[in-house]
Amino acid sequence: MALRAALLSGKRGLSGLLCQLSSSSSHVRVCVSQQRTNSTAPKIKVDFNQTTGVAVMNMQSPPVNSLSLDFLTELCIAVEKLEMDKSCRGLILTSSQPKVFSAGLDIMEMYGQSPERCAEFWRAVQEMWLKLYSSNMAVIAAINGSSPAGGCLMSLTCDYRIMADNPRYSIGLNETQLGIVAPFWFKDSLVNTVGHRHAEMGLELGLLYSPSEALRIGLVDQLVPEDQVLSTATQTMTKWLAIPDHARHLSKSMMRKPTVDKLLSSRESDIQNFVSFITKDSIQKSLRVYLEMLKKRKG
Amino acid sequence: MALRAALLSGKRGLSGLLCQLSSSSSHVRVCVSQQRTNSTAPKIKVDFNQTTGVAVMNMQSPPVNSLSLDFLTELCIAVEKLEMDKSCRGLILTSSQPKVFSAGLDIMEMYGQSPERCAEFWRAVQEMWLKLYSSNMAVIAAINGSSPAGGCLMSLTCDYRIMADNPRYSIGLNETQLGIVAPFWFKDSLVNTVGHRHAEMGLELGLLYSPSEALRIGLVDQLVPEDQVLSTATQTMTKWLAIPDHARHLSKSMMRKPTVDKLLSSRESDIQNFVSFITKDSIQKSLRVYLEMLKKRKG
Amino acid sequence: MALRAALLSGKRGLSGLLCQLSSSSSHVRVCVSQQRTNSTAPKIKVDFNQTTGVAVMNMQSPPVNSLSLDFLTELCIAVEKLEMDKSCRGLILTSSQPKVFSAGLDIMEMYGQSPERCAEFWRAVQEMWLKLYSSNMAVIAAINGSSPAGGCLMSLTCDYRIMADNPRYSIGLNETQLGIVAPFWFKDSLVNTVGHRHAEMGLELGLLYSPSEALRIGLVDQLVPEDQVLSTATQTMTKWLAIPDHARHLSKSMMRKPTVDKLLSSRESDIQNFVSFITKDSIQKSLRVYLEMLKKRKG
Repeated sequence: MALRAALLSGKRGLSGLLCQLSSSSSHVRVCVSQQRTNSTAPKIKVDFNQTTGVAVMNMQSPPVNSLSLDFLTELCIAVEKLEMDKSCRGLILTSSQPKVFSAGLDIMEMYGQSPERCAEFWRAVQEMWLKLYSSNMAVIAAINGSSPAGGCLMSLTCDYRIMADNPRYSIGLNETQLGIVAPFWFKDSLVNTVGHRHAEMGLELGLLYSPSEALRIGLVDQLVPEDQVLSTATQTMTKWLAIPDHARHLSKSMMRKPTVDKLLSSRESDIQNFVSFITKDSIQKSLRVYLEMLKKRKG
Repeated sequence: MALRAALLSGKRGLSGLLCQLSSSSSHVRVCVSQQRTNSTAPKIKVDFNQTTGVAVMNMQSPPVNSLSLDFLTELCIAVEKLEMDKSCRGLILTSSQPKVFSAGLDIMEMYGQSPERCAEFWRAVQEMWLKLYSSNMAVIAAINGSSPAGGCLMSLTCDYRIMADNPRYSIGLNETQLGIVAPFWFKDSLVNTVGHRHAEMGLELGLLYSPSEALRIGLVDQLVPEDQVLSTATQTMTKWLAIPDHARHLSKSMMRKPTVDKLLSSRESDIQNFVSFITKDSIQKSLRVYLEMLKKRKG
Repeated sequence: MALRAALLSGKRGLSGLLCQLSSSSSHVRVCVSQQRTNSTAPKIKVDFNQTTGVAVMNMQSPPVNSLSLDFLTELCIAVEKLEMDKSCRGLILTSSQPKVFSAGLDIMEMYGQSPERCAEFWRAVQEMWLKLYSSNMAVIAAINGSSPAGGCLMSLTCDYRIMADNPRYSIGLNETQLGIVAPFWFKDSLVNTVGHRHAEMGLELGLLYSPSEALRIGLVDQLVPEDQVLSTATQTMTKWLAIPDHARHLSKSMMRKPTVDKLLSSRESDIQNFVSFITKDSIQKSLRVYLEMLKKRKG
């Protein structure tokens, strides 16, 4: 049930595994978290407006907001703080990095790590999803760049998704393109958003949708010019905050609780599945090949 | 799981609670059942055409067909009678009141009533839903006016929904706008009709859709000019009655039985949830404030 | 839960029962398997291209590819062979018969047969569905003609559906039009493809959709000119085979396993339901009336 990989056939490179950034429709830039220029700088910047009750959470982890353990830990702590502050009613998730919302899970967390570390990492991915998907706050994604794999998952946890109308950007759970498989709770989030059929085809083919395609199938709710993504999110939030919090949150919980409970009731086995998969010799080998390929590209 | 309310924040009045009629897109008229001019007159008028096998059920409880205990009791008896009459194969639900199909649950049934009476009322709401949602007849809603909250629920029980193409009318489960939460079987009916995502957003925001928006998301099936709603329903019914009753009903049952069984298996706890919520001091207080506000408006 | 029939009212002939071919939008030709000119000729022709790893399965059982026990047995054996051949990664289902993909279940398998034979037949229908719906191969339907009832079911098992853009063709689970009811796993396949609401209306009314309608509700994925159905399927298959098999199949399994498991866990009772229904005197009588009507038409 958990994340699993298949060795890729010779024809296709392991391009973009878990950390892909489509910088244009014609070619792909790939980045890993090693490129970070300052690993101790805060990866999350929160601007909370006491007057409006809305916090804007900027993801600012160069180059592509990869979901590393540090990143996820920071994010979860930030969300929990806001959740406990009764005066914070709305949360806007956005990116400070150019062209990308988040490129998804950080491959370096999965290569050459101990089983214990892998388990810790996966628990943090689960925690991020659980916290955001069942948040009491109204959460809006201001998707101002590409959002593949784990970045798409993060978008799916939100109550509303606004994306930059730039055809160079894409969004989707593209795991199969990389030879791996989205775990069941990634799948459940997608089914709840675009329905069974689009989820099936999107997952089987690892589809990355253009903004207009994403709008058509309901993967995002609204497209706006790139420079208006955040301002539109702020305006939209007033509509969400016009609803009494208690009623809005109970309705959200009624819709999402069965999906949340599924992961809560199988969290440990989901971690075990991930660890036993990712620590396989064959998987580690393909990750090494992939990373060496990346080094050559950059060299 | 049952209907729950939240105290509204100061900014928003408790406008339209459970008994809302949007008479135009720019302002809202609110009515309560006390306005009834003749409380003993039949609230339901049934015209059964023996030749066609189709009954038209006119809701005629001024001013806005509020779902009071009396109204629901009459309606359930009328449906049961038709259900037992083998010659009646189709049912068209429509309103004799101008501008409104049904404004939903009657607030007077929930204010200052004993727990026993509240329980009796809620059981009647359940009974209405159960009878209509699992009817052996082909049931078509001829929605010739606004249909918020409980009125929308009634529409959702039907096999087909035809709405007047008048932008002043609206339809939706708008409970959260009033600080309350639709119970799980309202939610299930909506999910079965518009899918998980539209249900989630519609319930969280308490959206009232214009006819064209309702058509776009599948909340209604067809729009026609206001004066053709009933005639179109009658024509459409011939298509439904062209299908052998037995086969049509077994197919309907196959689709709806799991949803019906969910309420049947938790009917008493759903009533208890409703009663314990609605009889809370805080809720009764906000209902009193609301009713006093209505009196002032009318004064 | 299984296939059940209702005696048809006098007004409607039992036209098209289980073996319908709409040869035009204005009238209906009906065929039974007795018309086969050569019952020992292979009903399935498989062309496997070792280079591409794609097999094309031509259904060539005159006149309308009725799903007889022999046909289903041949088809299941052919699928199983391909499934076990690791070099076969993709399967295209299409028809060699003009104007029809498959007309669905063969009525002759259900009339005048022993309970044992009926059970054997139904098990074969289940087997076809199970094999195709959970195939490890990427399966594409090249729907080059009408595809009612069981033909539609076969299409629904595929990963992708390409249909000829000819308004004379239609597709749908039209069982209720014939007084019978699609069993639960037909229904599940439809819900998974077009969602709950379209499945409900489609099944209740036994709707046969034109290609453009089928595209609109997601019952097929793509329309192309009639002479390009197969070539488009071949081109599309390269996109599916660009995905690592293991990852694609695990994703497919994650989406479909719950639906497959439902039938697997109630297979025997589903057979018993079918047999006890189809061997009823009343049902056999209506089948006889129907077959006699067909003979007269042909006479």
